[in-house]
Amino acid sequence: MKTISIIGGTGNQGKGLALRLGAAGYPIVLGSRSSEKAIKVANEIKEQHGNINIEGVDNGTAAERGDVVILTIPFKSQNDILDPLKEKLSGKIVVDTTVALIPGKPPTTENVPEGSAAEKLQVILGSDVKVVSAFHTISAHMLEDMEKELKGDTLVAGDDAPAKEVVIELANKIGLRGLNAGPLKVSSTLERITALVIGMNIRYKKKSIGVDFTNV
Amino acid sequence: MKTISIIGGTGNQGKGLALRLGAAGYPIVLGSRSSEKAIKVANEIKEQHGNINIEGVDNGTAAERGDVVILTIPFKSQNDILDPLKEKLSGKIVVDTTVALIPGKPPTTENVPEGSAAEKLQVILGSDVKVVSAFHTISAHMLEDMEKELKGDTLVAGDDAPAKEVVIELANKIGLRGLNAGPLKVSSTLERITALVIGMNIRYKKKSIGVDFTNV
Repeated sequence: MKTISIIGGTGNQGKGLALRLGAAGYPIVLGSRSSEKAIKVANEIKEQHGNINIEGVDNGTAAERGDVVILTIPFKSQNDILDPLKEKLSGKIVVDTTVALIPGKPPTTENVPEGSAAEKLQVILGSDVKVVSAFHTISAHMLEDMEKELKGDTLVAGDDAPAKEVVIELANKIGLRGLNAGPLKVSSTLERITALVIGMNIRYKKKSIGVDFTNV
Repeated sequence: MKTISIIGGTGNQGKGLALRLGAAGYPIVLGSRSSEKAIKVANEIKEQHGNINIEGVDNGTAAERGDVVILTIPFKSQNDILDPLKEKLSGKIVVDTTVALIPGKPPTTENVPEGSAAEKLQVILGSDVKVVSAFHTISAHMLEDMEKELKGDTLVAGDDAPAKEVVIELANKIGLRGLNAGPLKVSSTLERITALVIGMNIRYKKKSIGVDFTNV
């Protein structure tokens, strides 16, 4: 099975994806700026779910080792974290979960000149990296609660069709239904939907509102 | 029950909403630029579903008579159709279903300087009109097929909370679940979701993909 690296993997969304993908049988390489922190979180994940093949490393090692590299980093850290990793990511599938969120009631998204966080990422990483945008609206709360089966749709956008298929398969393997949302520029819509869903969680006092597509 | 006017009501979405709201018991006033055409379509609707209280009139009369006025007009006709109706709409709830769609594969939305079609409408009509944005992703195909029960969610955005409640009730009365999506500016997200759903219908060769919110 493909090795999945998660860069910035020690936050809630990174941990949640590590848990779910690891439990589905993928070897996980969890990256953080500090390898100590990554090791600590990897151990926590192993304690929570013994049957996971996971290792904590620094982000650079994670970029090198993953067949697929998932980014769960803040939008404002894109440049800082990724500039040193560009060469290591060359040719790989990089999955962006980032939303350029402006907190508020309701939260909104920044006007990113490139169109969306994922399109900005493509510019930072260059055209030989296969950027795929996915997993935005799947809340960390849902990912981390391993007592509950994960379900729901996740929209997947990208310009490289085979890379998009790989990410759709990852989604399907953890119980979600990956749906092809179109080219990478559609990510601007996916990212806005995330802000919408966060706003609805606040308004309806919920934690895990999701978006499903019917009659597909 | 509140009288519902539909301006530009002779297109597929207008007819579909007239059918569903009429069948739910609301008196319907169907407006068109030409009252002859409105009368013809109103008669067709009566033939399709005998139990509907519906009348065809010109758009000006429809604007005057409706307690709630639904717009199913093309984005590019907003100014032409609505400038003459401004006074008649003063103080009323006006429901905008418009998307500034750019056809294509995938379809996208225009960058409307006001933020969205609904926000542009609010500027055109002035601040004493209660603009509510809704019913975007409910396909005409689903609305018109009266053999099938309508179901699914419709997101409702607006700055006037009581007006938004009225529109949520309209949605609920025809079998949908109206959800409060937030202030009117969220309409930019709702309108983009429509383009996304149209693109998914093309990609998956479907006609009536819908968007549902889970765990609300």
